[in-house]
Amino acid sequence: MKITDEMQKESIDTLLILNPNNISYLAGFRPSAASILIVKDEPVLFTNQMDMEDALLNSKIPVEEFKSMKELKGSLTGTIGLESSMNIQTFERLKKDASFETKITDIVERLRSIKTNDELKNIEKALEIAEKAFKSAEFDSNKTENEIAAEIEYNMRLKGSQKASFDTIVASGKRSSLPHADVSGNIIERPIVIDWGALYNNYCSDTTRTIIETERHEEIFDIVLEAQKSAIAAIKPGVKACEVDKAARDVINEYGYGESFIHSTGHSVGLEIHENPSLSKRDETTIEKGMVITVEPGIYLKDDFGVRIEDMIHVTNKGHVLNKLDAKINI
Amino acid sequence: MKITDEMQKESIDTLLILNPNNISYLAGFRPSAASILIVKDEPVLFTNQMDMEDALLNSKIPVEEFKSMKELKGSLTGTIGLESSMNIQTFERLKKDASFETKITDIVERLRSIKTNDELKNIEKALEIAEKAFKSAEFDSNKTENEIAAEIEYNMRLKGSQKASFDTIVASGKRSSLPHADVSGNIIERPIVIDWGALYNNYCSDTTRTIIETERHEEIFDIVLEAQKSAIAAIKPGVKACEVDKAARDVINEYGYGESFIHSTGHSVGLEIHENPSLSKRDETTIEKGMVITVEPGIYLKDDFGVRIEDMIHVTNKGHVLNKLDAKINI
Repeated sequence: MKITDEMQKESIDTLLILNPNNISYLAGFRPSAASILIVKDEPVLFTNQMDMEDALLNSKIPVEEFKSMKELKGSLTGTIGLESSMNIQTFERLKKDASFETKITDIVERLRSIKTNDELKNIEKALEIAEKAFKSAEFDSNKTENEIAAEIEYNMRLKGSQKASFDTIVASGKRSSLPHADVSGNIIERPIVIDWGALYNNYCSDTTRTIIETERHEEIFDIVLEAQKSAIAAIKPGVKACEVDKAARDVINEYGYGESFIHSTGHSVGLEIHENPSLSKRDETTIEKGMVITVEPGIYLKDDFGVRIEDMIHVTNKGHVLNKLDAKINI
Repeated sequence: MKITDEMQKESIDTLLILNPNNISYLAGFRPSAASILIVKDEPVLFTNQMDMEDALLNSKIPVEEFKSMKELKGSLTGTIGLESSMNIQTFERLKKDASFETKITDIVERLRSIKTNDELKNIEKALEIAEKAFKSAEFDSNKTENEIAAEIEYNMRLKGSQKASFDTIVASGKRSSLPHADVSGNIIERPIVIDWGALYNNYCSDTTRTIIETERHEEIFDIVLEAQKSAIAAIKPGVKACEVDKAARDVINEYGYGESFIHSTGHSVGLEIHENPSLSKRDETTIEKGMVITVEPGIYLKDDFGVRIEDMIHVTNKGHVLNKLDAKINI
């Protein structure tokens, strides 16, 4: 198991895992309530009575019932690795009257950044469901943003998605200039930014399309598309995440819209919708084969409109686009 | 503002708030990405560029752009109150080279436990939407659990819910014995446990109904209903949360099914689906006027079937049931 090698490199004797996504990754079982996976020579998953039946059936790691923090602490020695997502209340309880050293580590998140073939298949399936659901939505209608979002989510679910992988964005007209708009009761008008994803076997997809109308929309659209293509072309094993961000940003700067590109270029996706590395100015992580990353530049013109285009990229020897849906939607 | 009184009582000079639900509660604006609300004499909400437009429009508290942790730390003196949900990575960055004292506090969560009239209206509206959506679902059909869940969620959305307030549970036949089952592709069969909720203005509803068929189902159903009524009758200002739990548990124990009631009796609801206090064996919190709490006893017979009934209670001089939907569904 690669994880023990990583623990040794970081001089961690025991790794405590509470994040349900990390437990799901290692144990193949996703707890619904607080569970703790302890990784040392013999890993053990401590779970609660409510999840026990499911855990015994699905966990790849031996399962025991969680009794008390006291009992758990008694079994901890040496340097204990903790996830950065652990909350300070749990941390305080853990450290109280304890003699072990602790160290924050992102070992599991690092392992998760390189997707296995099975993980890739789940992501591709989620994306396939999401794209099919998008295609069956009626954008040429008098529907509200909310109705369109409801329709896409309903379609995804019937096609096998567990739920939306994040809150669907349908932002139309002036609202398209808000990058994190959700939905409103407004009747849709162009441009329409749709940012949506499915969840399949707990894996996320994440795509954005912008449906445009006027020549001015198209002018901005083409800049965003050029920026996106430039970033995708920059993706290959060995480059830094921030270099990919720069590739998109340079194009948008060149056209004079740098101030209107107010977020990072993309992020990794897997069990969570936002994973590391992210394609941002400050992320110096080296891109590696097997990562799955979105590329989503956008231009947001305040009180006017916005355009964002987002695809999912699997890093092979280059950046391989997983989406099948065209960037330009003809509706 | 009550919050400063509470801070004084706990000798906290400055309160740092990062939890988006707590920010939403105090500022009336829900950030989509990391934001920090600092409460001292003059509260300030530090937010990111992406949320700025929305924040300036909707925040009741003055907004500034978040620049850096360093700048933020420079403005902190005395004893700093931190939320228990803060993660240890943020905590470590905050404490590095800093001289201030920190203290974990749940001041905002405590304030949130007593709902204002506006909050209650949002919860009631969420519940109304959820119940209407339930009524229009077709349980007398050859649909799968997943299709029923999709239908309820779609209906809720069209009736004004932002999204499901948690993952809808439709667990039928043997699967009803799993308290935290989600949904499957199985065609529904009796009993059907449906646990669902809407989200309205960021406030949650949470209800469970079990649709039964046989006399054996009814026998268990009646015990659960008796337990639920007993707990609801026990709710009034001044009693302890654990006493309400005991009222439900005693009934189920009496009939010999104590071992099959494997979770707590209920939990508070508001901006989050699970808030404090919870109606559990160990929660000694005093029930107060203005709390909104679910009461959801259940009996789970392994490999056989399960029954759970859940209603939302507003604490007035007694426990006032907010649900309008009958416990027994005649379909």
